[in-house]
Amino acid sequence: MGTFVVLGGQVGGAKLADGLYHLLKRRLTVIVNTGDDFEHVGLAFSPDLDTLLYTLAGLASPNAGWEPQGETRRLYEMLKMVGGPDRVPLGDQSLAMPILRTEGLAAGRTLSEITRGFCQHLGIEANVLPMSDDRVRTQLLTEEGAVSFQDYFSQLACEPVVTGFHYANAAEATIPEAIVNALRAPDLEAVIIGPCNPYHTVRPILETGGMRELLRKQGAPVIAVSPIVGGGALQGSAAKMMRELGQEPLPRTVAMEYYKLIDGFVIDQVDAEQAEGLRASGIEVLVAPTVMRSLNDRVDLAVQVIKFARHVATVKAEAAESGA
Amino acid sequence: MGTFVVLGGQVGGAKLADGLYHLLKRRLTVIVNTGDDFEHVGLAFSPDLDTLLYTLAGLASPNAGWEPQGETRRLYEMLKMVGGPDRVPLGDQSLAMPILRTEGLAAGRTLSEITRGFCQHLGIEANVLPMSDDRVRTQLLTEEGAVSFQDYFSQLACEPVVTGFHYANAAEATIPEAIVNALRAPDLEAVIIGPCNPYHTVRPILETGGMRELLRKQGAPVIAVSPIVGGGALQGSAAKMMRELGQEPLPRTVAMEYYKLIDGFVIDQVDAEQAEGLRASGIEVLVAPTVMRSLNDRVDLAVQVIKFARHVATVKAEAAESGA
Repeated sequence: MGTFVVLGGQVGGAKLADGLYHLLKRRLTVIVNTGDDFEHVGLAFSPDLDTLLYTLAGLASPNAGWEPQGETRRLYEMLKMVGGPDRVPLGDQSLAMPILRTEGLAAGRTLSEITRGFCQHLGIEANVLPMSDDRVRTQLLTEEGAVSFQDYFSQLACEPVVTGFHYANAAEATIPEAIVNALRAPDLEAVIIGPCNPYHTVRPILETGGMRELLRKQGAPVIAVSPIVGGGALQGSAAKMMRELGQEPLPRTVAMEYYKLIDGFVIDQVDAEQAEGLRASGIEVLVAPTVMRSLNDRVDLAVQVIKFARHVATVKAEAAESGA
Repeated sequence: MGTFVVLGGQVGGAKLADGLYHLLKRRLTVIVNTGDDFEHVGLAFSPDLDTLLYTLAGLASPNAGWEPQGETRRLYEMLKMVGGPDRVPLGDQSLAMPILRTEGLAAGRTLSEITRGFCQHLGIEANVLPMSDDRVRTQLLTEEGAVSFQDYFSQLACEPVVTGFHYANAAEATIPEAIVNALRAPDLEAVIIGPCNPYHTVRPILETGGMRELLRKQGAPVIAVSPIVGGGALQGSAAKMMRELGQEPLPRTVAMEYYKLIDGFVIDQVDAEQAEGLRASGIEVLVAPTVMRSLNDRVDLAVQVIKFARHVATVKAEAAESGA
């Protein structure tokens, strides 16, 4: 059995990573979006990294997967009382990693090193890597101006109409060597794009430091799992954004986003009738239950995705041979 | 009725300031020790300022006056879980002011400005002023080396034998103009030194930027309240430090610490028999119940101290006239 790379962020990405982690342990590398990182009350927040760590450590809330279970907001209540900003409802436990991250960055440590430290202490064996140690910031271009996802989500309640995206500093940022090594590992079996918002969770990773080209050049199949199920997103605002961008909220729209990058695509069973159309465009398609309500669901989906990736690898190898 | 200045820190100083505040409101200026300020997990902690603010805002825990009532430690538990330091048991609510303080200092605001902002939001009308906007750090010289009070208290459990004190940067630090103005106010009635540790709470204030000379030169009487009651300190390690410094833990030792500075001295009723000896050395003495268990106790003591200060002012004026 070889190694696997999964990339993404958000709760959906974390859940699939968790399923894969249960099967693969240290043979799993997770590349995490940091384009939605933000600074607030002087602290460095990395929401996608923290969501993943809570999830892999088994600490995440079942209902609000981006924070630990049983979260409280005592500090936040006092913060507001003494005049602090109220726009981000800070959780008490959720502030521990941002505080240590801020301290670590100020001391000159990289985000990768800091994240590795958290993983070691939480007993996470997977290789969790931020997409870059350089600062990349996704801006949602809206009819009301450019905003961070954090502001769009918590201050603007996802209301402004989205017209586009800008990934500030993505081209200039470099990919950490650990990511390059994971993608060039001789035993790499597949790269999996998690069921995440294609625009502000996956694309920032692809736009960073030539990642898209790196993924295209490596030999293992690239598989994406659709975040769109039954015409909507399970969580987040992907479907809303698609409509505003003039696209239908369908798996096909996601597949087109990853055009020329993916070899296989996983869609939910409720969208089974769309499989043929997708296959006609030359992509291998797996129809599977992709809604992960329990830990079992995560592992079941991971099992199917791994099996599918191996199938796609075989198809890809055969195509290469017949092409050669 | 004129204005009053009280100086000090710790829970004892905060309680007396609270009693005075109930009587004087905006006619009270509190000068607060910042020599025990410390940096931890990248945040700027000002324990004496925070203790005072919780107390004046009516938020302080009755049992642990340095933190808000009903404090929880959820963030701290998570902090330890992800590899953070465990030496300071951080409270959730107690982190709000340090976080905003750190952010404010990084943005170039002074400690005075930041403190004023907290007071405004907490509805505190007293004029609360840190002893300096410059960094002054008290070091306890012990048989095991120099340590901060924070480390002495929370890491070393107050165990090392104290041999002396060093107030790093005190001479170079400047006194904020607001303090100079309060001490030069034409209607200033008295300066009161709170019942606090003379060595690491009061002396840093006196050593900072010529404060001792400033206090001597202003005309109003200086009154100190003894932190030593019945041979011990009510809270903290003042008595232990006195013994280690070869002094008896008696009010007289405190009075000697303020030699040539104070005009009046307040001792507890349990030490009444020591009043005569103190008067013989030329100080006006008030014997009063100084143990503040309730808000009523604080106000009662404040009433007595104000009355006593006015008596001392009369005596001082008469002495000046007869001397003239």
